[in-house]
Amino acid sequence: MSQHDKFMQRCLDIASNGLGTTYPNPLVGSVIVGENGDILGEGFHYKSGQPHAEVNAIKDAEQRGWNDSAFAKATLYVNLEPCSHHGKTPPCADLIVRKGFNKVVVGTLDPHKKVAGRGVQLLRDSNIEVITDVLVEECNQLNKRFFTYHKNHRPFIVLKWAQTADGFIAPVKRDKREPVWITNKYSRQLVHKLRAQEQSILVGTNTLVADNPSLTVRDWSGINPTRIVLDAKGNLDVHSNIYNKEAPTINIDPSNGFENIIKSLYEHQLQSVIIEGGRKTLDLFIENDCWDEIHQFMGAKIYFKEGISAPIIPKNAIMKSRQLIKDDVYKIFSRS
Amino acid sequence: MSQHDKFMQRCLDIASNGLGTTYPNPLVGSVIVGENGDILGEGFHYKSGQPHAEVNAIKDAEQRGWNDSAFAKATLYVNLEPCSHHGKTPPCADLIVRKGFNKVVVGTLDPHKKVAGRGVQLLRDSNIEVITDVLVEECNQLNKRFFTYHKNHRPFIVLKWAQTADGFIAPVKRDKREPVWITNKYSRQLVHKLRAQEQSILVGTNTLVADNPSLTVRDWSGINPTRIVLDAKGNLDVHSNIYNKEAPTINIDPSNGFENIIKSLYEHQLQSVIIEGGRKTLDLFIENDCWDEIHQFMGAKIYFKEGISAPIIPKNAIMKSRQLIKDDVYKIFSRS
Repeated sequence: MSQHDKFMQRCLDIASNGLGTTYPNPLVGSVIVGENGDILGEGFHYKSGQPHAEVNAIKDAEQRGWNDSAFAKATLYVNLEPCSHHGKTPPCADLIVRKGFNKVVVGTLDPHKKVAGRGVQLLRDSNIEVITDVLVEECNQLNKRFFTYHKNHRPFIVLKWAQTADGFIAPVKRDKREPVWITNKYSRQLVHKLRAQEQSILVGTNTLVADNPSLTVRDWSGINPTRIVLDAKGNLDVHSNIYNKEAPTINIDPSNGFENIIKSLYEHQLQSVIIEGGRKTLDLFIENDCWDEIHQFMGAKIYFKEGISAPIIPKNAIMKSRQLIKDDVYKIFSRS
Repeated sequence: MSQHDKFMQRCLDIASNGLGTTYPNPLVGSVIVGENGDILGEGFHYKSGQPHAEVNAIKDAEQRGWNDSAFAKATLYVNLEPCSHHGKTPPCADLIVRKGFNKVVVGTLDPHKKVAGRGVQLLRDSNIEVITDVLVEECNQLNKRFFTYHKNHRPFIVLKWAQTADGFIAPVKRDKREPVWITNKYSRQLVHKLRAQEQSILVGTNTLVADNPSLTVRDWSGINPTRIVLDAKGNLDVHSNIYNKEAPTINIDPSNGFENIIKSLYEHQLQSVIIEGGRKTLDLFIENDCWDEIHQFMGAKIYFKEGISAPIIPKNAIMKSRQLIKDDVYKIFSRS
């Protein structure tokens, strides 16, 4: 494994600390490596409006006593092209030039139309050696939400459901208007972690009526995703949990067609959405072949015998991982 | 999920940041939760000799402007019993009393003979309400190495190998004295990450002669594990890579029996060991039913047709996870 790969992997690792808090910004990590191959400083972007990764890495290195003369012989690694425009913070490319760096290694270009190669160009115009496209697949994977949104003009779509050992996601009869638990509390905590990672969460009307879910992050530390209800009739109970004050809630009318749902999600600037059911809503996305990942939980010792069947895993899905969570089985599929 | 479970899980999450650098100390995280349920401060133990988790959490809370009057109404969470003895740092239990806490939630007691209930007793003697045994299984899992060492008087033992799709770990013939790669560079980087997590790494003489491995962490950031060779004859080539200066190397004579190997590892105060082969050495631990985890990598498109067969997964092993790493399959087994 090359040095470039190794330090780029370090950028990706520390960048992932910002998952769930950087929206609408991407996940970015930066590492400054001295002439002897030692790390002089590192930093990542934690939250929109706060300093970018490169700024934090330079600050970290300076706090450790390094100055511009060390930077002249160092290499700055960053997994996404440094910005060249004034957003909430000044351009990072300018800072890198000013701090005297002669060499910068960039994972991938920024697909955002305000950057898109301009950051790299600005560095090269200042006679900085710039190497690009290092660990491209890994960089794309880390920022799959950001890239999907800007390249495909739709959010990254995660389908999630829990099913019994005999393949049901809900029983026929229920006593109360609340969820019927299929998985254990550790799986449910993991679901809350997943929610905290995505920018929005979506359910259909039937699930809203049957389960009265809150769709918030309670058993994990993180920001509540924006809640979305696919509601054709517009006559939902406003006293449902989903309309409490814990997070914003958006109604989208699905009767105008699937394309319209996708367009609406894009226009609300949502980079990712986790879809938690029910069967009809999950099938809508599967039938339109419009999904990126499927997260399937199975209560391996729970049997309903009858009920609402789980969706069928599509043929173009490939199992990426399978994990035991005590008695539950948790599988992640992506597109083959 | 209860509040206690939730904040204990947070302790475990941040504690895991110290994996590989805290030896001989355990992984500990601490969270201070205010009367409104907000986190006032948090911290974890990063390295032996540096402050314990509780000290870092209190310091963090104080830097955020909280003082003893806030602590009096707050709850301090910590996944392992606070220490009551003077080690490299003063006792944390004393500090907790001095800072005015009235409530402490502890994951599990510390099995170390110098603590073992004394920390909790010291707190209770100062009229602090102490709740213990929260998320016990998860606390034990996080510190599986520390607990195995202190309770079973042996290191936590991880068996690791890579095999071809047709089940071989090495070819019949080889041209050079170096490893023959079965898996891709991403799996190999992951192996270096695994090495950085364990305190020691062990191979048999045959692997040393055939592969001339370095057994160091090159493609990851971390401390090189102590290297161990099972060597009966004591006439190994001192110019082998395993004797370079990058990490300490210990020779253990296996001819005195298996019990003696285990005893020697314990006496060297090694809390964990990853065993990387070859077949004879891996089988030695399987036959003695003395292992805790098996990490099996498979190059799913590599066929040798003949060679040295991979060990057989024991019947009392249960697959905990299976993951694709590009073309490779990576499975983790634990004891059923």
